[in-house]
Amino acid sequence: MAEFDLVIRNGTIGTASAVFAADIGVKDGRIVAIGEKLGGGDEEIDATGRLVLPGGVDSHTHIDEPRPGPTVNADSFASGSASAAAGGTTTVIGFARQGRGESLTQRVAEHHERARRSRIDYSFHMILTDPTAKMLAEEVPALVEAGHRSLKIFLTYDGARITDTEALRVLAAGRKLGALVCIHAEHHELIDFYKTALVEAGLTLPKHHAWSKPMLVESECVHRVCKMAEALDTPIQVFHVSGAEAAEEIERAQKKGLKVWAETCPQYLVLTTDDLDRPGFEGAKFIFSPAARTGADQDVLWDAIRRGIIFNVSSDHAPTRYEGADGKLAFGPDAPFTKVPNGIPGLATRMPILFSEGVVKGRIDLQTFVAITATNPAKLFGLTTKGTIAIGYDADFAIWDAGKPVTITNDMLLHDNDHSPYEGMAITGWPEATYVRGKPVVVGGKVVAPEGYGAFLPRAPYPLIAPRGVFPTPFNPVDGVLVDR
Amino acid sequence: MAEFDLVIRNGTIGTASAVFAADIGVKDGRIVAIGEKLGGGDEEIDATGRLVLPGGVDSHTHIDEPRPGPTVNADSFASGSASAAAGGTTTVIGFARQGRGESLTQRVAEHHERARRSRIDYSFHMILTDPTAKMLAEEVPALVEAGHRSLKIFLTYDGARITDTEALRVLAAGRKLGALVCIHAEHHELIDFYKTALVEAGLTLPKHHAWSKPMLVESECVHRVCKMAEALDTPIQVFHVSGAEAAEEIERAQKKGLKVWAETCPQYLVLTTDDLDRPGFEGAKFIFSPAARTGADQDVLWDAIRRGIIFNVSSDHAPTRYEGADGKLAFGPDAPFTKVPNGIPGLATRMPILFSEGVVKGRIDLQTFVAITATNPAKLFGLTTKGTIAIGYDADFAIWDAGKPVTITNDMLLHDNDHSPYEGMAITGWPEATYVRGKPVVVGGKVVAPEGYGAFLPRAPYPLIAPRGVFPTPFNPVDGVLVDR
Amino acid sequence: MAEFDLVIRNGTIGTASAVFAADIGVKDGRIVAIGEKLGGGDEEIDATGRLVLPGGVDSHTHIDEPRPGPTVNADSFASGSASAAAGGTTTVIGFARQGRGESLTQRVAEHHERARRSRIDYSFHMILTDPTAKMLAEEVPALVEAGHRSLKIFLTYDGARITDTEALRVLAAGRKLGALVCIHAEHHELIDFYKTALVEAGLTLPKHHAWSKPMLVESECVHRVCKMAEALDTPIQVFHVSGAEAAEEIERAQKKGLKVWAETCPQYLVLTTDDLDRPGFEGAKFIFSPAARTGADQDVLWDAIRRGIIFNVSSDHAPTRYEGADGKLAFGPDAPFTKVPNGIPGLATRMPILFSEGVVKGRIDLQTFVAITATNPAKLFGLTTKGTIAIGYDADFAIWDAGKPVTITNDMLLHDNDHSPYEGMAITGWPEATYVRGKPVVVGGKVVAPEGYGAFLPRAPYPLIAPRGVFPTPFNPVDGVLVDR
Amino acid sequence: MAEFDLVIRNGTIGTASAVFAADIGVKDGRIVAIGEKLGGGDEEIDATGRLVLPGGVDSHTHIDEPRPGPTVNADSFASGSASAAAGGTTTVIGFARQGRGESLTQRVAEHHERARRSRIDYSFHMILTDPTAKMLAEEVPALVEAGHRSLKIFLTYDGARITDTEALRVLAAGRKLGALVCIHAEHHELIDFYKTALVEAGLTLPKHHAWSKPMLVESECVHRVCKMAEALDTPIQVFHVSGAEAAEEIERAQKKGLKVWAETCPQYLVLTTDDLDRPGFEGAKFIFSPAARTGADQDVLWDAIRRGIIFNVSSDHAPTRYEGADGKLAFGPDAPFTKVPNGIPGLATRMPILFSEGVVKGRIDLQTFVAITATNPAKLFGLTTKGTIAIGYDADFAIWDAGKPVTITNDMLLHDNDHSPYEGMAITGWPEATYVRGKPVVVGGKVVAPEGYGAFLPRAPYPLIAPRGVFPTPFNPVDGVLVDR
Repeated sequence: MAEFDLVIRNGTIGTASAVFAADIGVKDGRIVAIGEKLGGGDEEIDATGRLVLPGGVDSHTHIDEPRPGPTVNADSFASGSASAAAGGTTTVIGFARQGRGESLTQRVAEHHERARRSRIDYSFHMILTDPTAKMLAEEVPALVEAGHRSLKIFLTYDGARITDTEALRVLAAGRKLGALVCIHAEHHELIDFYKTALVEAGLTLPKHHAWSKPMLVESECVHRVCKMAEALDTPIQVFHVSGAEAAEEIERAQKKGLKVWAETCPQYLVLTTDDLDRPGFEGAKFIFSPAARTGADQDVLWDAIRRGIIFNVSSDHAPTRYEGADGKLAFGPDAPFTKVPNGIPGLATRMPILFSEGVVKGRIDLQTFVAITATNPAKLFGLTTKGTIAIGYDADFAIWDAGKPVTITNDMLLHDNDHSPYEGMAITGWPEATYVRGKPVVVGGKVVAPEGYGAFLPRAPYPLIAPRGVFPTPFNPVDGVLVDR
Repeated sequence: MAEFDLVIRNGTIGTASAVFAADIGVKDGRIVAIGEKLGGGDEEIDATGRLVLPGGVDSHTHIDEPRPGPTVNADSFASGSASAAAGGTTTVIGFARQGRGESLTQRVAEHHERARRSRIDYSFHMILTDPTAKMLAEEVPALVEAGHRSLKIFLTYDGARITDTEALRVLAAGRKLGALVCIHAEHHELIDFYKTALVEAGLTLPKHHAWSKPMLVESECVHRVCKMAEALDTPIQVFHVSGAEAAEEIERAQKKGLKVWAETCPQYLVLTTDDLDRPGFEGAKFIFSPAARTGADQDVLWDAIRRGIIFNVSSDHAPTRYEGADGKLAFGPDAPFTKVPNGIPGLATRMPILFSEGVVKGRIDLQTFVAITATNPAKLFGLTTKGTIAIGYDADFAIWDAGKPVTITNDMLLHDNDHSPYEGMAITGWPEATYVRGKPVVVGGKVVAPEGYGAFLPRAPYPLIAPRGVFPTPFNPVDGVLVDR
Repeated sequence: MAEFDLVIRNGTIGTASAVFAADIGVKDGRIVAIGEKLGGGDEEIDATGRLVLPGGVDSHTHIDEPRPGPTVNADSFASGSASAAAGGTTTVIGFARQGRGESLTQRVAEHHERARRSRIDYSFHMILTDPTAKMLAEEVPALVEAGHRSLKIFLTYDGARITDTEALRVLAAGRKLGALVCIHAEHHELIDFYKTALVEAGLTLPKHHAWSKPMLVESECVHRVCKMAEALDTPIQVFHVSGAEAAEEIERAQKKGLKVWAETCPQYLVLTTDDLDRPGFEGAKFIFSPAARTGADQDVLWDAIRRGIIFNVSSDHAPTRYEGADGKLAFGPDAPFTKVPNGIPGLATRMPILFSEGVVKGRIDLQTFVAITATNPAKLFGLTTKGTIAIGYDADFAIWDAGKPVTITNDMLLHDNDHSPYEGMAITGWPEATYVRGKPVVVGGKVVAPEGYGAFLPRAPYPLIAPRGVFPTPFNPVDGVLVDR
Repeated sequence: MAEFDLVIRNGTIGTASAVFAADIGVKDGRIVAIGEKLGGGDEEIDATGRLVLPGGVDSHTHIDEPRPGPTVNADSFASGSASAAAGGTTTVIGFARQGRGESLTQRVAEHHERARRSRIDYSFHMILTDPTAKMLAEEVPALVEAGHRSLKIFLTYDGARITDTEALRVLAAGRKLGALVCIHAEHHELIDFYKTALVEAGLTLPKHHAWSKPMLVESECVHRVCKMAEALDTPIQVFHVSGAEAAEEIERAQKKGLKVWAETCPQYLVLTTDDLDRPGFEGAKFIFSPAARTGADQDVLWDAIRRGIIFNVSSDHAPTRYEGADGKLAFGPDAPFTKVPNGIPGLATRMPILFSEGVVKGRIDLQTFVAITATNPAKLFGLTTKGTIAIGYDADFAIWDAGKPVTITNDMLLHDNDHSPYEGMAITGWPEATYVRGKPVVVGGKVVAPEGYGAFLPRAPYPLIAPRGVFPTPFNPVDGVLVDR
């Protein structure tokens, strides 16, 4: 009997702290040995000339998430998980979403049902669109306790957005329960004001989507949520920081000592408002929120990654199709941008684009790449067995051909969508094989793991060391007692 | 017949640009000559050893303004205008306030009625608590045209506050009509959240008023309104900036090139949260909003005045009485702070306190004192005949005994209130006589002008040179057309 | 006998605080009356349709100042003062310059000799290039006492620059004597390093002048001198702030509470590095230090003026000729920029260019124009009878045709130079006549005042209210005693 | 024969990216296996209940470094390396110092001689006090090539400091040769000015040391060196950042995109100016440069560590004795601070103090502790086999008893000094055993490795991804060619 179930031989391993040559030995789905010339495995993979990186953790993905309106999520967990694995990701955090008046417990249960088809491991944030006091007191504690340790709120989108009072209530629950609150921060009323004016002015092309939500609607709201988090002394993650002004507010909050973390997404690092102005209705493929910004914003975001202001990079996978009654074209090729469904697919492309634009182009080193795509999100969201290659961790990794020239085409992405905004993009580097708990999920661009191989990951409280906090009064309104400073 | 109606002889005149000895000659209520050894006047005043300063312009005063709830405004225009004049102020801008569902035109007309009793000149801001599209289209333009060239909005206070969408509507009207929008900026929901928590925790003393609205509820909202003004490229004045963090947001906006002006008030320069903690129920006399801050905040505010970040200093006179069924004690000496009526009197004390704490203590020079109390607010609010001592301007001035030691007592203030938060404060300098259009209003602490001597001042569009603006999109949502950059 | 020596009738008077129509009455060279329909004057000027503005104060001018090397100052005080008056300026502050090992007292005396030819009033800064302890103790106090109340130091230029230790000594003297220290702040060694590298690389065109001293050599040094001023708690004026980064350091210092004032010059508001790249050797006409910057820097400087960060605008008149053995062409049209004499003429053009680019183009209002060109420099440098139109002040003013279209030509400038960098520039507005102490100096472009009409102005200690200072230790190294905070 | 030379069993391993339980297998001095239940070793250590952390890298240590003046370095490499190992450090970077007029090559050779006694591995920075062009061209390249890949310069201290021109020359050499320049940044002239004034005022107690070099002498110089690095686009490390203002300049530089790294030292995290004021002459034990600051500065430094602004923490071990003719008392207990030798010992205490104050007190997590004490300095200084626990890396680690209560006493520190500034400090956690290349160096507080066990580490060019740089001109003065942007 071999010493290991699986041995990856002769690869170059990259973690957030080091890059080194070694074999990896796996047993029972866990990494049990890292070393030179390890003993034999029932299965052996030769990774000579290849990078072996921790499987990615994509902490912001909308997969098979029922949404109001005509649009549907193009991906099931079967296709979404395949797509993630195709791009080197082995864990996704999706969203169990409560609608107004609904039971969150029930929605979470239903989402567990849907997620059973996943080929990779998964966990959920819980979206609260109706955070009544009753809901927060009666349902949320048990759900958090069961490992759904993060609460997502929207401050924009009709049907999803909550008021600032409700947001405060959710933040208070986050503090009380040790759950991280994640926030989509845009100033809803201002976007509406812009939209109305643009429609009245007849400016309704895809490119006007970006005009309807310029950077300030985001930077305003980022500042606002940081202040609310400051008042309650509770940690938050600001989702999808899109450019300079929003990053500036994040930095100010961090400098002040607030418990504020931020992510960005590949689309903000490689797409710009110019893409919204592609000929015909092509621009609709680039309608997502917050909107794409400028090249100067991209430079600031890369700096913010390197400087640690942005902690992780997720996909914000929101897989609207282009064609069909539920796609971007739902209202025809002359539809005003206000009617075009938001969102782009991104599960498979997240890591390869970051690798190529970041590591290959010399903007970040390999350790930083691993940190922002895997180690940091795992740490922030309490995925204690994920995000690095170390003894005892799950045997999740991808074997990368770091020098492979690739032109992105939709069929490589293994999702159930009819397009990718990155179609035709030339990059360098792609995962040859992706393993979850020691088993191959995607190899050579083919899905090899069955539906349902993935497992739910209950999460631990985030273990991050946060700044000591700032106390605007001698009183914390959540605890209802004096702060002992 | 004398050459002048009135000559002020041998005084030292102070303007925002110079201090010099000269006589002033007045005819028909206007300054017609400034010079050495002017010809004779029907009336002559010897100002030897005295400062002759422009009459103050107090651009933020609540006088005889009907308010919901048990509290009433202690002052009529007869008493309020006397009090203002007692302290060297010769023009007040009050507020004509629309309630929800009400006609603003009617409220303005009624306020004109009440204001007829004024002994000094006056103008109105118009408070919009229900800025429907119809109201803004049908009533506001004519009222602005008639000289009510500023719109006041509240983002906090139940019954007064409007939503951000309504605020955007008002800002758009401001841009279209050339009316300055003045804003009470505090984050309403956060204050409510604090209040609820404090009440639940049994922390309801006057001092907890400041705990319920720490600086961040203000700095958040200041940032937010600056962003809204940026989106619409329209000028605003942020009212009553109370300390460092809010001033920081003002400075950032100004640095960015936004059309943002700010005022502060004497209470933020000389009172602190400690005053709210005076023995017994005394602290209630210091309940106003935003709340008093710290000594460090005062230093920042003085710097902000000297550096031009704060443009003018008003009283925010809001004359709640202490005793009586409509006073701070309305609900008894054990009332929770949440029930205590807000607001303090300040018309008479505004200029003397600033003079003593600013000029006498060497924090600002006399020119800056004149600028922030008279010249700047006159300029900002389009009072083209007020705010300085120059030919053709109204003969509004106060004759100051700059070295006079004064202990403030309530009866000196000539208002109709039973207390002053500054009772017992020792200051240096006090106006001996105040003139409006060449006629004495208060002399030696006695009212000498009849009720009704004051006149309404229709105002011109503000003539200030503003920064060129910042354009977050190629589109201005108010004009509905592309910006020509 | 007429009541006045001179009456200016029906003009529109502009001061730093107001704009109004009035007559001005002058007697014995002083303004004795401002009013409507003043009595008669021995001389009467009709200023109908004209602006009457305070005569400008140019606080940074090199006139007839012996310099080492081949270059000479093109202007005598006779021509320089005529040129200043042609452009509306009525007071200049020049420089009495000490060479190494020389007696400052003697140099000051000699400069008084040369300045006797001036047609307008004047004062001197004293340049210290050899600030020995002996010099500062034995000569400087009496010279300061005699009204030369400012000390100028250079931190760059061989032959002029002093070390940081010497600079500290001068700053200490400034504190002890109540003399303002004015500083040319550029990092000398870095400029030398750039120059050597550029020469080695064969990059020696006029445009490479700007490459040899990019913004950072200035912003570095501005920061350094602010820190030295902070250590000693003594006020400074930073000369010729040229763009964004340097202005940023000024703003930081002011925000911190340091006693730091700054000026800029018209060349930094209207010229750019592109001018250095004009065809042939034309670019040499734009070689001055600090170097011209970019359009973006100009925007920041206008904002800095409007926001009060920059307090006054001087010419830095340094009148090198173009032709001739002592001009820019001294070493021929192929001379490397390192050999081309620095400096441009600017006395006459300072105010008209600022008026046209500032007031006419809507960047600043008329009051601000008056403040930065006249009132502020008079105040900062203790010229107590200059800088505004008020009773008792010297009757210094210019009568402006505000709407006159003008194309700048060298012969209009009445200086003794063969060119102007602004030749051919189209502007709006020009002074028709300039008066000093009630006498015309330039009228209709012709000099009418004799050489020697101008008088020396001993200056008072600067009366500005400065921030309270920042005390990095409990000890002030100048006073040698503990600071009483 | 056992599979490994050494196995560390059952420890909890901490790296910069993960904390996990595993055995470590060592062969030939390298880590060859990390895993569960590894095979046998010739030597086996039970680390149950213990942390196994990478051996520390102390990148700023003065050991057996001949210095001018009466003071001598208390430690030889034999004692210094023992002390380092006692505190968990396994690699030190010392300094080979060139005096004026001396050959650096010779000094480096001599230092190699002295360092042969080391018990742990070592490398050298080269101090340049006389960086002539000849020296930089003829000696430095070969020395850098030989693995001395960093140049240290002082901008203060007589006998050590170089001019800005010389500093530019060194920075240029750093760029050309791929050597990192490390800088002691304090404004020398200002310190001298303070000192002179303090001595004149009779303020010469140990506490006045801090008065002679307040924060601004450091923040000024940090800003200056960042500007010089910006001009040449070359990376630097600013040594011993001591507090808020200096950290602010570092942050500004990093935000601008400059290649600026910074370190701090434990003394700035736990000592304050109050320590300089201890009774008698005790304060002399706390005389080091930059001087200790305040508690508020410490908070900022912890934040700066957490936020990544400060990259590593070194000891700046500068082991002056207290007693004796070469100690702090050299000039007696009444000596003015100006005569007291600078410097404190810190090799042994660096990691335990950071562990206790950082990890145990919850200010930083264990990963960050490892990063700043080992991984980051190894990476920055090109120590490619050091700084983490990974396959192929040298088997350098310390086994920590993380919960052990310790009171620091001088004899624990194994150095050759008669005191420690931390004597009596209560901390938690201490290394039980320290290994270098698989061999124990200090075990249970006893030295077990012989003198000379340590080896010289030639270093690789730093592999860090730096920001893309900022180009103030289209020209880099080092390369002498146009920048291709």
